[in-house]
Amino acid sequence: MEKEKNFVAINTIDAELEYIERFEMLFKSRARAIDTMEGFHSMQVLKPTLPGESYLIVSFWESEEHFRNWSNSPEFLEGHKRGFADLSKARSEGKKPPMHSQFRTYTVLAR
Amino acid sequence: MEKEKNFVAINTIDAELEYIERFEMLFKSRARAIDTMEGFHSMQVLKPTLPGESYLIVSFWESEEHFRNWSNSPEFLEGHKRGFADLSKARSEGKKPPMHSQFRTYTVLAR
Repeated sequence: MEKEKNFVAINTIDAELEYIERFEMLFKSRARAIDTMEGFHSMQVLKPTLPGESYLIVSFWESEEHFRNWSNSPEFLEGHKRGFADLSKARSEGKKPPMHSQFRTYTVLAR
Repeated sequence: MEKEKNFVAINTIDAELEYIERFEMLFKSRARAIDTMEGFHSMQVLKPTLPGESYLIVSFWESEEHFRNWSNSPEFLEGHKRGFADLSKARSEGKKPPMHSQFRTYTVLAR
């Protein structure tokens, strides 16, 4: 087993139908801030084949510590700047959030 | 984007607490039948860091057709033989299934 990608974080995101186009654009033009982090190995943005199901943002890390370090870093804020701004704008206008997300973490048991 | 791993299948598995040890053993000693399939790129068995959450079996494929071909193949039955036998045994004894699984599929939107 490769030591360098033993820890996996998956962000499950449900986006409102009218936000999907912008949501996909944000990821296709992503800041790549995460790519510079120590212990980061790779990531994939997974689009469900069935419309209406959740998107998954999967990232592979050397260790949980490396992932936690990123999630508390300025790069995390930089990488999510546009999405966070969309959420703030909706909140300030009294609208419902355009997306919901939940982080879950895993270790690689086998390959 | 690498053409050869653009399609992703994720099998979400919830195992009964008393079945977890055997479940993990089955994957750690897996048959590797899937590895021989055309269009198969790689797979990871993800163990949740929080006990009680779902395991994820993630496989990367060249295309949906390659994945469908595998899921209808003798190799699929061979690769799942021991797990399927456990399910059959529970059924024949009138016990509840030791695990539940659900396949979802995705395309890679970005990396």
